[in-house]
Amino acid sequence: MTVKERLAAQAAEVEVYIRERFGARMRERGVPEGLLSAMEYSLMAGGKRLRPCLCLSFAELFGAPRASVMPFAAGFELIHTYSLIHDDLPAMDDDDLRRGRPSNHKVFGEAGAILAGDALLTEAFGCMSRSWPAVAAELVLPALAEAGRAAGAAGMVGGQMLDMEFTARQGVTLAELAHMQALKTGALITASCVCGAILAGAAEDGISRAREYGEAVGAAFQIVDDILDEVGDAATMGKPVGSDREQGKSTYPSLVGLNESRRLAGQRVDAALAAIAAYDGPAADFLRDLARYIVVRVQ
Amino acid sequence: MTVKERLAAQAAEVEVYIRERFGARMRERGVPEGLLSAMEYSLMAGGKRLRPCLCLSFAELFGAPRASVMPFAAGFELIHTYSLIHDDLPAMDDDDLRRGRPSNHKVFGEAGAILAGDALLTEAFGCMSRSWPAVAAELVLPALAEAGRAAGAAGMVGGQMLDMEFTARQGVTLAELAHMQALKTGALITASCVCGAILAGAAEDGISRAREYGEAVGAAFQIVDDILDEVGDAATMGKPVGSDREQGKSTYPSLVGLNESRRLAGQRVDAALAAIAAYDGPAADFLRDLARYIVVRVQ
Repeated sequence: MTVKERLAAQAAEVEVYIRERFGARMRERGVPEGLLSAMEYSLMAGGKRLRPCLCLSFAELFGAPRASVMPFAAGFELIHTYSLIHDDLPAMDDDDLRRGRPSNHKVFGEAGAILAGDALLTEAFGCMSRSWPAVAAELVLPALAEAGRAAGAAGMVGGQMLDMEFTARQGVTLAELAHMQALKTGALITASCVCGAILAGAAEDGISRAREYGEAVGAAFQIVDDILDEVGDAATMGKPVGSDREQGKSTYPSLVGLNESRRLAGQRVDAALAAIAAYDGPAADFLRDLARYIVVRVQ
Repeated sequence: MTVKERLAAQAAEVEVYIRERFGARMRERGVPEGLLSAMEYSLMAGGKRLRPCLCLSFAELFGAPRASVMPFAAGFELIHTYSLIHDDLPAMDDDDLRRGRPSNHKVFGEAGAILAGDALLTEAFGCMSRSWPAVAAELVLPALAEAGRAAGAAGMVGGQMLDMEFTARQGVTLAELAHMQALKTGALITASCVCGAILAGAAEDGISRAREYGEAVGAAFQIVDDILDEVGDAATMGKPVGSDREQGKSTYPSLVGLNESRRLAGQRVDAALAAIAAYDGPAADFLRDLARYIVVRVQ
């Protein structure tokens, strides 16, 4: 199997969990139909499920059964999905398309989209807490704190705030851009890796390695995303290309050019590979292939 | 001390925690200044801190030290505050005033208000998880699940969705109104009580009593709120009165009249008192006075 096929197989596993376990629980509890439709519209839009895959793979790397970590891993996808819904709102990035379909608020209205996002974010933490009792409570709680920090004011939400501030002003530096992206995209990707390690009961050194890998892969991922916004085509991206430039956003290509952006992305991938060089086995091999796969798309 | 004074004293205790511990943690972590300002603007707007007080009082009733439960109790205030910020948005209830001041989005813009709400909701779960290790992990996790359920799609967010659906249509019944309010306001108030009991390690019967009390007090509170929107004055309310009627919202007074609304509120208070009749001590007395105080405002 190629890495793309293995990623797809893992994504399918995550989707089964979300559809059958999470969806069924929401129905059991009597969630208003309009709200559930809005939540599932975006949750089931065929994302790559990168964050759950990272969480599951690091859990496996450190010896945890994948099934025990699945609720926690799925929670990352709920958080990621909520962030896309809110980012697309007219008051934010005002995007009409997401993954090739009308964005959430174009279908369910602004109020529906705000509430669907709020609900997904809230349910994410409930979902994550269901890794207990399969995983010890003393491991689940630090993992929850880690995920909360990454998603919160000093992580993803803070990054979106900086992104909006930067869009409105000139002269953003490369250091500022890297910091903003580390918060907006990097923090949750990193937490997915770190939480997998924590939930598996990895030692401090293992957790540090997961963090290094996550930070490097997160940075590479975002640089590639910037490049694709410049050179990709709308069909592959599922959204209009060139939208960053149109909005006057600073990106890696706009600040250092395409070639240097590609070089920097490659450098981050090397850092990710170095972080987990000491490990072997199928999970380590998959994580290595995944890191390399990220930049293949732009070479 | 009157119940009002005791409530104020407890609110002050909660504010000290939020200002000193939560605020300091956000600053330590380097939360972007614009985001933190928007979060603190609404968090420090002088609410009654009813939900943390309920959580702390039930914890005390069942023998837990208040300090150990404080992080969890404060988390309820963060959730409550986020819900007010998002409810006031132009796409939702479109309210310009909250607690006598311009609502969050009037000061920080729509994007700022959406992000401040998202951040407060996220940080709430991190804050709650800090009741561990002072409280056993096996008690904190079920309490987190309870709070998440109450705040989520089948609780508060679902209730706001129903509220918006009901505002847009005619012929809402009293049963529908009561159900919507039980989700929108009742669920979080109930969870505040229930989580206090869970965190204190109360037995099943104690947790059921806390739930009965919370459901009854939550219902009474919302009926009183409906009445005050009809007969209160703007200065007391900190927002324009009659706004429910203006928006064509169904309320207890609009469906059953003022007198019957008062009778129903009184009935719910009696149910709350009955739920905790078997307990004594200062926490039980305070909870009884609090239940009675809710309806005093409209008699």
